[in-house]
Order: sequence, then C-alpha cells, then structure tokens
Amino acid sequence: MIIRAQKTELQRAIRTVMSAIPGKTTMDILTCILIDATVDQIKFTATDTELGIETVVSGEIDERGLICIDAKLFSDIVSKLPSSEVTITTDSNLQIRITCENTELRIVGKDGTEFASLPSIDRENPVVMSQFALREMIEQTIFSIAVNDANKLMTGALLETNENEIRMVCLDGHRIAIRRMKLDEVVPTFKVIIPGKTLSDLQKIMSGEEEDKVHIYFTKNEVLFDLEGTIVVSRLIEGTYFRIDQMLSNDFDTKITVRKADLAASVSRAMLFTSESEKRPLVVSIADRDMNLKINSPARGSMSDDIQITKDGKDLMIGFNPKFVADALNVIRDDEITIYFLNSKSPCFIRDEQQSYVYLILPVNFVA
Amino acid sequence: MIIRAQKTELQRAIRTVMSAIPGKTTMDILTCILIDATVDQIKFTATDTELGIETVVSGEIDERGLICIDAKLFSDIVSKLPSSEVTITTDSNLQIRITCENTELRIVGKDGTEFASLPSIDRENPVVMSQFALREMIEQTIFSIAVNDANKLMTGALLETNENEIRMVCLDGHRIAIRRMKLDEVVPTFKVIIPGKTLSDLQKIMSGEEEDKVHIYFTKNEVLFDLEGTIVVSRLIEGTYFRIDQMLSNDFDTKITVRKADLAASVSRAMLFTSESEKRPLVVSIADRDMNLKINSPARGSMSDDIQITKDGKDLMIGFNPKFVADALNVIRDDEITIYFLNSKSPCFIRDEQQSYVYLILPVNFVA
Repeated sequence: MIIRAQKTELQRAIRTVMSAIPGKTTMDILTCILIDATVDQIKFTATDTELGIETVVSGEIDERGLICIDAKLFSDIVSKLPSSEVTITTDSNLQIRITCENTELRIVGKDGTEFASLPSIDRENPVVMSQFALREMIEQTIFSIAVNDANKLMTGALLETNENEIRMVCLDGHRIAIRRMKLDEVVPTFKVIIPGKTLSDLQKIMSGEEEDKVHIYFTKNEVLFDLEGTIVVSRLIEGTYFRIDQMLSNDFDTKITVRKADLAASVSRAMLFTSESEKRPLVVSIADRDMNLKINSPARGSMSDDIQITKDGKDLMIGFNPKFVADALNVIRDDEITIYFLNSKSPCFIRDEQQSYVYLILPVNFVA
Repeated sequence: MIIRAQKTELQRAIRTVMSAIPGKTTMDILTCILIDATVDQIKFTATDTELGIETVVSGEIDERGLICIDAKLFSDIVSKLPSSEVTITTDSNLQIRITCENTELRIVGKDGTEFASLPSIDRENPVVMSQFALREMIEQTIFSIAVNDANKLMTGALLETNENEIRMVCLDGHRIAIRRMKLDEVVPTFKVIIPGKTLSDLQKIMSGEEEDKVHIYFTKNEVLFDLEGTIVVSRLIEGTYFRIDQMLSNDFDTKITVRKADLAASVSRAMLFTSESEKRPLVVSIADRDMNLKINSPARGSMSDDIQITKDGKDLMIGFNPKFVADALNVIRDDEITIYFLNSKSPCFIRDEQQSYVYLILPVNFVA
C-alpha cells in the first residue's frame, strides 16, 4: 500500500476515529486504526466492538492495500511531523514507512484483514437534522444518565420520534432530563436506547454548524450516524425504557422565576459544603420576593444566600442535592428560568413554556 | 478582626501565597493562610517551613486581628463569590464570617498566634534585577536540576555574583545548564545554593515585566526575594557546590550551526522511540552540510532524519539522550544555535558567542 495525504488531514482523521479506541482491552487489534485503501477511497476505521467510527481521508492512493496501525503511536508520530504531505508505505511484512520532507519513520503494523469490519446497515428512511442541533440535544441531557451500570437502561439515552418531533431523555433515578426539537419533516416513528458513550463520542466529532447535517438510520439492534464523510455505528441497548410521561406533571402549587446566573452562582458556592463522603442538602426557602438557600456542613462550614425571585402560589421549603440543580442550570441557555413545585416531597420541574426542555429533580429530606 | 477587600485582590493574594502550602503535611497549621491585620496592613502568609511567602493585600481594616484559615477552602470560597467587595469577620471563638453582596459563608479558623512567623532578615546590600530577567534565568536552567534528592546539592541551583555579573547553574550529573546576565551595577560577591522548589515557586509569582524589580538579600542560611508587596523567604542548601568551571572547555574539533526549529522537531520525534523503561540513544552523524539523526527501538520502531547544517572541523558520530537535547532547545530563544563537539566520548556544548547561555550535555554509548 502507498498512500499520500496532508499531515493536517491525517490528524483530523485520527482524532475523529480515536474515540472509538478502547482505553483498556486485551484485544491488541482494537488499539489499532485500520487504514483501508483497497478501493477508491482512503478510509480510517476504529472500533471497540460496541461502537465503530469510520472516516474518509482526502489523499491519493498510489498502490492499493490495507494495514492496521497502533492508534496511539500513529497519532503521536503524525503530530510530530512537519506540516506537509505525508507518504505511508507498507510492504508484505507489515513494515510501515512514514515519510515527510526529510524525516523517515518505520513502525510495524498488523494484518488489516484481521480487523472486524463495521456492520453494514441499510440506508433507508433517515432522520435528518443539523449536527449542531443533535449536539445540543446530547449536551443538554447526557449529564443525567447513570454513571454506574447497575441498571443498564439508565446508562443510555432514549431517542424517539413522533411525527415531526424528536426527543432525547436521560435519567438516573434521581432526575430526568428531556430535550425536544422540531424536525423539518414528518419522519418514521422509532424509539431506541443509545449507549451514553456513543453519544458522548458523537458529540466530540460533530461540527458545531447549523448547515452540516447528520443522517440517522436505525435497524433493530444498531444505529448509524452519517456525518458526511464520517460514519458512527453503534449497538443499541436492548429493553423497554422507563415510562417517562407518567412521571411528568403540569400541576404546581409554587412557581418561581429567577435569573439563572444568580441561582447558578449560589448553587456552585453551596457545592463547597457537600461532598461524596459528606452529602448535605441545599435547603431552599421560597417567600414572596426572595428565595433563601442554606447549606450546612459540620466539617466544613455553612452558607446562606438570598436571591431575588418572582413567585406565584404558596411559600415553600424544600431540599435538593445541589449538584443536580447545578448540572441542569449549566446547560440551559435562557437567562431567566422558571421552576415549578408541588410540595416538599414532590419533584420540581425546571422547564420553558414550550417544554423544549424539562429537568425533573427529586427533592431530598432535610432537617429544618 | 474585620477586614474588607475586593474579590479579585483576595484571589491574587491567595494565588501568590498558595504555592508555599505543602501538598502533604501532618501539621494542620501549614495548610492554612495566616491573615494578619494586627498593624496597618493586611498581610497573607503561607509557609512550608523551608519556604515562606507573604503578600500585602489592598483593603481596609475595620478591626485589627489575625486568624489562620484553611487555604484550599478559602481559595475555593473566594473564587465562587460575586466580583465585589468581600468582608471577613472573625470572633473570639475563631468563627469566620465571609460576606459579599447577598451571600454569607461561615467557616472555622485556627488560632493565628500559632502560626510560625517568617524569619526576619536584615535588608542590606541587595542585588537588584528585573523580575523578567530573573524569571528567564530560572526558566532557562531549572530543568537541569536533579529530580530525586540522592545528592541534595543537585536539587538546588547555584546563584553567584562576580562584579556586575550574576549567573545561575543547575546540573544533574548528565548535563549542566548555565545562564549569565549583566547587572546594572557592581554588587557584593556571593555564592549560594537555592532549593529548586523555591525557584519554581518564585517563577510562578514574578511578573513578566522588565520594569518590575526584585531585590535579593542574603544571610548565611537564608535568601529573601522582595517583589514589591510580596516577599519570598527560603532556606538555602548547605554545602559546597560542584566546581563547574573545570568541567567547561572552549576546545572543539567539530562545530555546527543549525536552525533550532529543525533540530527541535527532529528530536521531539525521536523521543517517541525512547522511554524510561526502554532507553534508546539518539545517534547523530555529522557530515559536511547535513546531519543525520537516527533512533531505533526494537519495540516501537525507528526514525531517520536529515537536517541541513553548516559545519567547521571534523565529521563526527555521537549518541545522546534526546530528552536532554530537547530540554535545552526548548528554552533557547535564538533561531540559530551553535553546538561544539570534541569527540564521541566528550560532552557537547550548546552556547552562544557571549556565553550568556551554556548547555553541556554528556554523550551516551551507542552501537553504530
């Protein structure tokens, strides 16, 4: 195999597929990038068996072939090359020669035919949306998935369509994050659970541009995201997702509107007085024009903040894990937010009027 | 005690003294910052017993007093406050109240009188230089000190004056780094060994401005750096430093001039093929107009680079630890550098004509 490509293009392609390389594995071949130049295009592929990423590399094929190359070493080498055209040559002994201007590096590759190819997926009936929108959707929900996989379903995000609407849902047993968006057209109805890791990898490699599109295709067990030049294929999580809609409610006895920046600053101070080893509740007291936030740690100290609000309905005292409030505020773009409460035992809802986002947070007990 | 200061000024002062807080210690009081408002100025002090840093804080004293406050917690709290005036109030029970706009935080302090004060040092016959120059001097030598303290002397830097000249020397048994500078006037002669940690802390808190001065004062066992508002006091390392000058030589049989960027790029690639666990020499072959650099790791692969040079004297083949070459190139500001060699068993010298910098690097054995 002999191929040529610019250093910057190689770097882009390596960075793109790199997130599919597993951190730890006993299978050596999975730590490699497959360079496939057997047909008319150069393609880089990496996979961790759950998730595969493939990207087309702009460059020239002088001699067809394929090779597997250690991803970390390849990435390090390319990053140290001059900004110029790079030639990669392999021989039948899996020796790889990388040349660029006056430097020549030799490393040993692995047999490209040993690399498991990505599953082929029928490309029919795509859901089309902007990469920007899908990125937002992931960013604004993924923080609510469960970190440990005691319940496998909670480690994924529900993605479902209905007519011309798509929504993503993440939950971890203490909170739910929901993000809804309109699509340009009516799409087929589906409801799948995508692994959290797939979505966070996707988030990293999608562009932030409104005009760049992603085409999403589904089979029973897999999902394929086509980013124009790069595809991400992932297994789905099997099972029936939680019935979200019966956990949601539009009833409230207290409704407050507050400047997001004020609340976020106070909550982030409160987090100084709670930790994994010493969990302390943030106690929120809502009165007519202001809200008091208190937290008290015997070991570290205490905080008491007053924040201006506008309020409809009853006064209320309720406790929260401040991290859950901080996480939601962190991804909301609005300057003013509205929070709905029923009572001190029921979840609160942070949501906008159109319910394009809904963050449900369960309260915690506290001693007044 | 009641004091008031702007958040940004508190942050500056905390950041300044913070590097004297030891990472690990069994003495609780050392993890604290002393706030001293017993006289007319607010001062923050931190010390790890080897090194002490004290800085004057712009602010108002409404009631005199002193308190010790956990440095990490204080730093975290201040960073989360609104950008506004902060009031710090203490009572006789060592309770500390920090208020700023509508937030109030309470933490518990420690008795300020338990804090060991910095040694007082006679301020006579200072060496005066710009903070910028001292920072350069440290940066351009400190990488050559020994990391482990098998030989205590090697963990410090020699600082010595002679007439109107000052020089800093660091060495670790494999290399020597020397940086000389002219002073504005003739100063008293001294020769001291300053702990590496003191110098790297100093480097962090000095300004990068030519016009900001540092006054340096010496006693037998201590050195004081006065940065106008902030002082750093450190113990010196006892002992007689190595006799450097007899290790230096101006003889050479081969002299080359090379573009620093070319050599640095090649050496940084070479470092991909050597590691702590598998040390490999960089083999340099010098011919008339070019220099070849080769490195070969059985486990990872090999590199061969050709670089244009101009050469005086004999051809030469010599081996180096590429990291030592990379470290020196990394701090040299010149675009072109000159390297002097005697033979493959003798050290090479990277130096400019005025010898304002000299980097001596010992060669390593290699198999041609």
